[in-house]
Amino acid sequence: MGYILLFECTFLLVPLITSLIFTEFGTVTATLITMAICGVLGFLLRMKKPENTTVYTKDGFAIVALSWIVLSAFGALPFVLSGAIPNYIDALFEIVSGFTTTGSSILTDVEALPKGLLMWRAFSNWVGGMGVLVFVMAIMPLGGGQSMHIMRAESPGPEVSKLVPRMNTTARILYSIYIALTAVTFVFYAVDMPLFDAICSAFSTAGTGGFGTKADSMLSYSPYIQVVATVFMLLFSINFNSYFLVLRLKFREAFNSEVKVFLGIVFVAIATITINIYLTPGLTECDTFGDALRHAAFTVASIVSTSGFATVDFDLWPILSQTVLVLLMLVGACAGSTAGGFKVSRVIILFKGAIREIGSIIHPKQVKKITIDDKPVSSDVVRSVNAYLVLYVFVFVISFIVLTFDPYIPLENMDEMTTNFTAVAAAINNVGPGLDMVGPTQSFAFFSPISKLVLTFDMLAGRLELLPMLLLFTPTSWKKR
Amino acid sequence: MGYILLFECTFLLVPLITSLIFTEFGTVTATLITMAICGVLGFLLRMKKPENTTVYTKDGFAIVALSWIVLSAFGALPFVLSGAIPNYIDALFEIVSGFTTTGSSILTDVEALPKGLLMWRAFSNWVGGMGVLVFVMAIMPLGGGQSMHIMRAESPGPEVSKLVPRMNTTARILYSIYIALTAVTFVFYAVDMPLFDAICSAFSTAGTGGFGTKADSMLSYSPYIQVVATVFMLLFSINFNSYFLVLRLKFREAFNSEVKVFLGIVFVAIATITINIYLTPGLTECDTFGDALRHAAFTVASIVSTSGFATVDFDLWPILSQTVLVLLMLVGACAGSTAGGFKVSRVIILFKGAIREIGSIIHPKQVKKITIDDKPVSSDVVRSVNAYLVLYVFVFVISFIVLTFDPYIPLENMDEMTTNFTAVAAAINNVGPGLDMVGPTQSFAFFSPISKLVLTFDMLAGRLELLPMLLLFTPTSWKKR
Repeated sequence: MGYILLFECTFLLVPLITSLIFTEFGTVTATLITMAICGVLGFLLRMKKPENTTVYTKDGFAIVALSWIVLSAFGALPFVLSGAIPNYIDALFEIVSGFTTTGSSILTDVEALPKGLLMWRAFSNWVGGMGVLVFVMAIMPLGGGQSMHIMRAESPGPEVSKLVPRMNTTARILYSIYIALTAVTFVFYAVDMPLFDAICSAFSTAGTGGFGTKADSMLSYSPYIQVVATVFMLLFSINFNSYFLVLRLKFREAFNSEVKVFLGIVFVAIATITINIYLTPGLTECDTFGDALRHAAFTVASIVSTSGFATVDFDLWPILSQTVLVLLMLVGACAGSTAGGFKVSRVIILFKGAIREIGSIIHPKQVKKITIDDKPVSSDVVRSVNAYLVLYVFVFVISFIVLTFDPYIPLENMDEMTTNFTAVAAAINNVGPGLDMVGPTQSFAFFSPISKLVLTFDMLAGRLELLPMLLLFTPTSWKKR
Repeated sequence: MGYILLFECTFLLVPLITSLIFTEFGTVTATLITMAICGVLGFLLRMKKPENTTVYTKDGFAIVALSWIVLSAFGALPFVLSGAIPNYIDALFEIVSGFTTTGSSILTDVEALPKGLLMWRAFSNWVGGMGVLVFVMAIMPLGGGQSMHIMRAESPGPEVSKLVPRMNTTARILYSIYIALTAVTFVFYAVDMPLFDAICSAFSTAGTGGFGTKADSMLSYSPYIQVVATVFMLLFSINFNSYFLVLRLKFREAFNSEVKVFLGIVFVAIATITINIYLTPGLTECDTFGDALRHAAFTVASIVSTSGFATVDFDLWPILSQTVLVLLMLVGACAGSTAGGFKVSRVIILFKGAIREIGSIIHPKQVKKITIDDKPVSSDVVRSVNAYLVLYVFVFVISFIVLTFDPYIPLENMDEMTTNFTAVAAAINNVGPGLDMVGPTQSFAFFSPISKLVLTFDMLAGRLELLPMLLLFTPTSWKKR
């Protein structure tokens, strides 16, 4: 926790410098106070040397869950102290939405926010995307066993592959690829965007977070920018291991089944939605086939990568397109990327397991192992992926029920059940916008504080893939061994 | 198939006699023609003696799936031939809805149907409830191995328990309990219902089907009848093995975890909905606490037992109550009952599997077996329940997508996504009504023929618990061994 607070203190230099440049003194003060709190607390916590530095599996999970909570609890302070978001629960929602790369906002007017805080939101997307503890590991020399369990708890996907034997080196390689790709994104954006917008957008595109700088998200940028965003959102949805393999010229291994299935899903979704919106009368933005294709591709990339940028109000699209988008939200992108969702590799494992079950009826004596890319998937992984689905449904259902207690009155032609369902789906999969009352042109401001806290929990649970957050609430995990 | 057609010929005596009593000659002719077709075809098929009578697992599944398709294909004829439902796809939807105990209807005016056909609908609920092949087995002497695989494919739930060593005797015991309980239901109904209504309602309550004789379902019957229906819908939702154990005075074994969890769910749901609708202004039927309790209990029993009777338009209830009802639809009732849904025992197995996964992080070296009622659940069962969840989601999603192609225009204040979602949920779980356009006061008539066929498939797939229907569409299962 001490390390985390000291790192947060350092991270806050980014919004501090931004607000100094834009001479936003309120934000400067708020950021400085937060930095001071983080610095002093972090220093005090580091004073007490730990009695025991062995990190078991459950400790790894606990470290990650608590780190993210601490990071968010203090990361919310600049919003509160500067008066930009006076309510602490709202500010917490906003920064958790940032770190978890969700991109849902409780702000009704994003452009009213000081530049420093806009930068802090975008930067939180970037840090959260690859993982803050992976970042710490890339810099701090930690023991091997410790980092493995922490990496496992923070990285998305059913399995963590070590790129190289040493975990710290793996973390460093991942962050190097991440920084390089982010820089490329920035260059492409800077061609046709103001510098500030290009930096923020590069951060939030890389983190697949979706926190932009404009009220209309990406609508008012040029088609060139929209196409660039589409491409990079998809690039950041692919397992970073693939980029490492590409660098080592192992192209066939880089283009593995997960990447193929992911691109297949993206292609089918774009084709379906393009035709659907092109043929639907009344959607003026999609009158020409080219426009329909651009908006469909952008929206699919934004939703499947769980970014949540928008160029168009897809809440007005026909039901077929909306249903495809909701399903994309739930599936998400590749494991080991910065994107959220259930992850394509998990879907593949579950699907192969189900096919095996049908096969076991046709040939009862053959029990086949599940293989992916000709490698067997261990039964432990299959079991844990199945358990993940159950826990996912469980967290989803509980949150869905709690949201129904919210006494908000839906606007005309907006459905409460669709709102609640997609709000939970958007939070747990770190997408950002949902449909109806939480559609791309709406905000999450209308929810009650309890609903906001539930959605905040869902964002954290979704980003950390459920187990770390659920373990915190399991009494037996606190017993001394 | 030959047997099945001959049995169907016999079943049709029930509507034949009914329509003779009510002197409905159109229906009499239609029923007689159908009986003749079934009789002749069944006789011809029985002429050819099978070369091989060994039934393997996959044969059992194929026999069950094909039997149900044949049963429905010919069972639809009386509706078409009598002119009551001229469109064959509509008639097929209606009778599949009957045999699968779903209770969804494409009829906009049920009371216009001749009594003979009303009886056929209700009787199809009854036959489908316990299973037509279980019925065949209870009467015909089949070999041991054969009946086991057929029983396994037709009976709902993750495991089939043999009550006694011989499968035919097990089938006979189950049907005896079923007939006795149906008779008791009839007696309770007959106290305050016309005789015809009491017979039909007893059949459809026993099968947890929900095909009534009135346009307003159970609204216009007395509170006494509504309470009776509530109690019996719940009784028919409990595993019939429990009744067998009660008859053997093994009360503790009869009251097993599944029954306890089921009753717990029912209790919580009734309490939540009662309070919710009682406190909501504007629901005139639920002004007094007693009325609110009666309607809440009836609706919960109707939905959780997947019957689908209604005393009130719950589509007007607040979102909390509606969400609880949708979740009840998905869970359903106990394995080995006449009710549909995912089944409480599967939920218990999945939940215990997920808890074990959390436990395996806290204590990585202990891998515990899942136990229910102190008996270990085999890993094969756990694996197949997990695969079942995946297949369930898969069939659900595909159907949900196909329905979005339906070009119907929703009525004002009705949501297309909620309609499609609950239509699929109601079909696959054999519930009957959903929400919005498929709410309790609506019908399924507005759907396109393709949507109706998809929902018809879903009803069959749901009743036979997915694998039999999915195997029919798996090419490798047709290969000769």
